[in-house]
Amino acid sequence: MQVFKKTISVSSSRHCEMIDISQEVKRFVSAHNVKDGHVHIFCPHTTAAITINENADPDVQDDILLTLRRVFPKNADGYKHCEGNSDSHVKSSLVGASESILISDGELVLGVWQGIYFCEFDGPRSRKVIMHIHAIS
Amino acid sequence: MQVFKKTISVSSSRHCEMIDISQEVKRFVSAHNVKDGHVHIFCPHTTAAITINENADPDVQDDILLTLRRVFPKNADGYKHCEGNSDSHVKSSLVGASESILISDGELVLGVWQGIYFCEFDGPRSRKVIMHIHAIS
Amino acid sequence: MQVFKKTISVSSSRHCEMIDISQEVKRFVSAHNVKDGHVHIFCPHTTAAITINENADPDVQDDILLTLRRVFPKNADGYKHCEGNSDSHVKSSLVGASESILISDGELVLGVWQGIYFCEFDGPRSRKVIMHIHAIS
Repeated sequence: MQVFKKTISVSSSRHCEMIDISQEVKRFVSAHNVKDGHVHIFCPHTTAAITINENADPDVQDDILLTLRRVFPKNADGYKHCEGNSDSHVKSSLVGASESILISDGELVLGVWQGIYFCEFDGPRSRKVIMHIHAIS
Repeated sequence: MQVFKKTISVSSSRHCEMIDISQEVKRFVSAHNVKDGHVHIFCPHTTAAITINENADPDVQDDILLTLRRVFPKNADGYKHCEGNSDSHVKSSLVGASESILISDGELVLGVWQGIYFCEFDGPRSRKVIMHIHAIS
Repeated sequence: MQVFKKTISVSSSRHCEMIDISQEVKRFVSAHNVKDGHVHIFCPHTTAAITINENADPDVQDDILLTLRRVFPKNADGYKHCEGNSDSHVKSSLVGASESILISDGELVLGVWQGIYFCEFDGPRSRKVIMHIHAIS
């Protein structure tokens, strides 16, 4: 059992944005010749998240962000947090701070249409994504 | 440390449906005499998800699906994705593509009322669920 | 590879509440001198959840709970489940039953502003949280 660790930087250019980090994850796994295990992808920020979704039509990402903005609007009655980004914190907890991706025979286990996304909910900002591989073989 | 892998097929019969896969997961773990570790359950589709929820009253599943349909309706202003299933992609990211279930003394670690569900958000369809056990002992 | 297990009790005092369990998780990891691996934190209840979010301003927690109450109200047309807590089950599946936290050089991998929360969605109640460390070194 071996551990490999890498932290990457991600820069968002909009207030809300889904940034495809699949290639960074794939390169990290390939670089260590891992056959089996998993890679854990963690977002150390409380107004951002990690998710898996469609990587073919970029309209899907726009529609997801549109929906989250409609259901969880920036300004809602009763918000107390002085930074004015309570909606971003809500989205972070609902989408979730991490994903664990299986590694099988040297490849990430992902469906044909799946990509791994860093979700920015309070940008634009410079962010970090922490990746650890737990390699069984 | 050992790895065991299995892919199962799941057929949904409705547009949105929660299908209990707990028994398939339990049988997979029992078949390999795993004492400790975890089983990672992954959905390789972008309009479906994996969750854990109540396995006693089927009304709970209906109410969860009803709520998701009400809050994230199929037709919403501004959707661009031409397949017309943007709501399904949203639900997929919010419920999440995977669950990791602990294995302790040969048993899945689940609460008394918990079952593991494949969530179909764009059916009916034939789907896959990928399961890997990472066995420590 | 070693496994360490601990179950803690959490008592909620309100109907919906986010309870910071970060210190319990940190103490558990420190007690076993784990250098690398991860700790899996699992909620065995179907009307509660585990999440990671801001630990600085408690208003963030109040705003998250306010938002969930607004978007997923307790009483909605069409609910069938006789216990009247379908909204709690929905929140449980959306926030999620578990979090895996990486351990690196003996420390939990968390951002500066991140805490680990048990989310009560149908309290007040006495609850359990199950924690397993999978230690690589």
